[in-house]
Amino acid sequence: MVKANAFLPGLEGVIAAETAISLLDTDLGQIIIKGHDLIQLSTQNDYLDIVHLLLEGSLPTEAERKASEAKLKSGYEVPEGVTTILRALPKNTHPMDALRTGISALGGYDAVLDDRATSVNKKRAYEVLGKIPNVVANSYRILNEQETVSPLEELSYSGNFLYMITGKKPTELEERIFDQSLLLYSEHEMPNSTFTARVIASTQSDMYGALMGAVASLKGNLHGGANEAVMHMLLEAKTVEGFEEMLKSRLANKEKIMGFGHRVYMRKMDPRALIMKEALKELCDLKGDQSLYEMCEAGERLMEQEKGLYPNLDYYAAPVYWMLGVPIPLYTPIFFAARTIGLCAHIIEQHDNNRLFRPRVEYTGDRPAL
Amino acid sequence: MVKANAFLPGLEGVIAAETAISLLDTDLGQIIIKGHDLIQLSTQNDYLDIVHLLLEGSLPTEAERKASEAKLKSGYEVPEGVTTILRALPKNTHPMDALRTGISALGGYDAVLDDRATSVNKKRAYEVLGKIPNVVANSYRILNEQETVSPLEELSYSGNFLYMITGKKPTELEERIFDQSLLLYSEHEMPNSTFTARVIASTQSDMYGALMGAVASLKGNLHGGANEAVMHMLLEAKTVEGFEEMLKSRLANKEKIMGFGHRVYMRKMDPRALIMKEALKELCDLKGDQSLYEMCEAGERLMEQEKGLYPNLDYYAAPVYWMLGVPIPLYTPIFFAARTIGLCAHIIEQHDNNRLFRPRVEYTGDRPAL
Repeated sequence: MVKANAFLPGLEGVIAAETAISLLDTDLGQIIIKGHDLIQLSTQNDYLDIVHLLLEGSLPTEAERKASEAKLKSGYEVPEGVTTILRALPKNTHPMDALRTGISALGGYDAVLDDRATSVNKKRAYEVLGKIPNVVANSYRILNEQETVSPLEELSYSGNFLYMITGKKPTELEERIFDQSLLLYSEHEMPNSTFTARVIASTQSDMYGALMGAVASLKGNLHGGANEAVMHMLLEAKTVEGFEEMLKSRLANKEKIMGFGHRVYMRKMDPRALIMKEALKELCDLKGDQSLYEMCEAGERLMEQEKGLYPNLDYYAAPVYWMLGVPIPLYTPIFFAARTIGLCAHIIEQHDNNRLFRPRVEYTGDRPAL
Repeated sequence: MVKANAFLPGLEGVIAAETAISLLDTDLGQIIIKGHDLIQLSTQNDYLDIVHLLLEGSLPTEAERKASEAKLKSGYEVPEGVTTILRALPKNTHPMDALRTGISALGGYDAVLDDRATSVNKKRAYEVLGKIPNVVANSYRILNEQETVSPLEELSYSGNFLYMITGKKPTELEERIFDQSLLLYSEHEMPNSTFTARVIASTQSDMYGALMGAVASLKGNLHGGANEAVMHMLLEAKTVEGFEEMLKSRLANKEKIMGFGHRVYMRKMDPRALIMKEALKELCDLKGDQSLYEMCEAGERLMEQEKGLYPNLDYYAAPVYWMLGVPIPLYTPIFFAARTIGLCAHIIEQHDNNRLFRPRVEYTGDRPAL
């Protein structure tokens, strides 16, 4: 028992909100999403189901699934003005900053921006979810002076997203694995980005502002950038031996190694990582080249032996995206796109049952002379 | 004594950070800024002094003041691309959303964006502070299809800011009062917007993202929008009697009345409000028309009698901005502009001594069947 206002740096262990959306149950090793086990969902359901679960509270019937998909697809087009804005950004703009700017601009096209009613917020969420793949893929294309791509309505939501990124229609396997990665990233209790979105939403500010704050948060090296950092390590290391040497030398230099550990899971394996590990195996099998998989496994073994640390989702999502032909600078924007549904659910919950976040500080500076 | 992880909605009373920047000392009724009393500073110093105090830790010598001012002025110009982006926004875009988009876009022009060193962050803060009046004034002008205005280096920082807003060179009195309002808004411990900025910065994300998150936060009705709401009430009420009737009827309907009360000050008067009350008196005296001042005083008296509530800064800043000729939709953007220095100080402090914010939740949803 400590005082309620004892200072816990980073609010570690502090309960910041009541939520019916999700929980990392570290005792049971479960990620609970609206009463379901995320890992089970990831083998039996797809991203569209999760969208319905998080926005409507239940897994959809076939008719509800179709209705959800139609709502997403009707939001696919991005206003021309947003494209103009993306084109006006300096070409060296960070892809997350382009995404941030694009989402910020979208607010101006919402005719009922001030309306926070649950039904309006839900409709808004479907619209934003519809647009996110388009903004993610085309902002990157514009920054890299590639032609923009239009969404293909004949594809599934995830299939279209991957198509807009690579410019090629994905195979069934590619589509399924990409969809699974989106599902695994979709919601994860109260990471910094979700917390940011709720803190902003608690002023009764709008969904775009809260989402944009989450983009800014996810951009940070200590949060969403890990999947990109993992891929850069793997590419630099080239071989199993090279990777083992790299990890050993970084450990010796006490450098932080991305892709391992998680504040909440601590010393257990992130259960989502295992699903992506299997997906990586499948993709490597198909290609007939196990090298990436073998490197990752060797790294996993070494980090367990040397530090007792286990891979998190980013560690295996990174090589999966590589095998799917996704440009590395899009790994974090895709993480954000996948998480948009979780963020929208949290923003709506915050608006529906609000208390302004306004903590206090421990002042360590000087006092004025009296 | 309660458990450390007892749930306190809105983190009320929870210590979220250690800081040497500021404290609301509710026992002494003091706002402490880096060892100084803000109210004392507001009568003896100006905004430029506070910029130095918050970034460099001390009130400036005459030479340091000149150096600070030169740094701000060298940042006055806004890249043409940002103006293009502001022009591409739909004309009904909320001024805070335009500001949000403009600041987001600025990130792409920072050649050392990934560098979080204190010296680089400080240099960045001066640059951003230099540009904020320009972005605030011209984004509003562009949305309203007015001609943009270029900064006038011959004026002081605050004088130029007011000039860019109104298009007229301010008198000495106008400049002094506007400067004083900026000073009073400059820093205020850990309101939602400052908390948002620190939460984002704690992922090691960049200053632009953290500032933009603060814009999104400040936009919310429960935070920065209060000064605008106050002015709309005053204009609608027109007379002392009208205002008293309006307040009584809103109280009877249990409506929230903006401009009164503050979570941290609770039942005491916001000491900043008193300074702006005096400024309002001065402006009304000069104009020879006391009506706005009399309405505000009557409202203050009525709210104290009926509810034991006292005015906060927004209550008296609003009519002051009205008397200075500031368009109402700019009241919140100006609040943000003034607060930018406080936010930058907090972002730098967070980067310098960081711990990722990552709280937990109280899960109220269903559990998966075992």
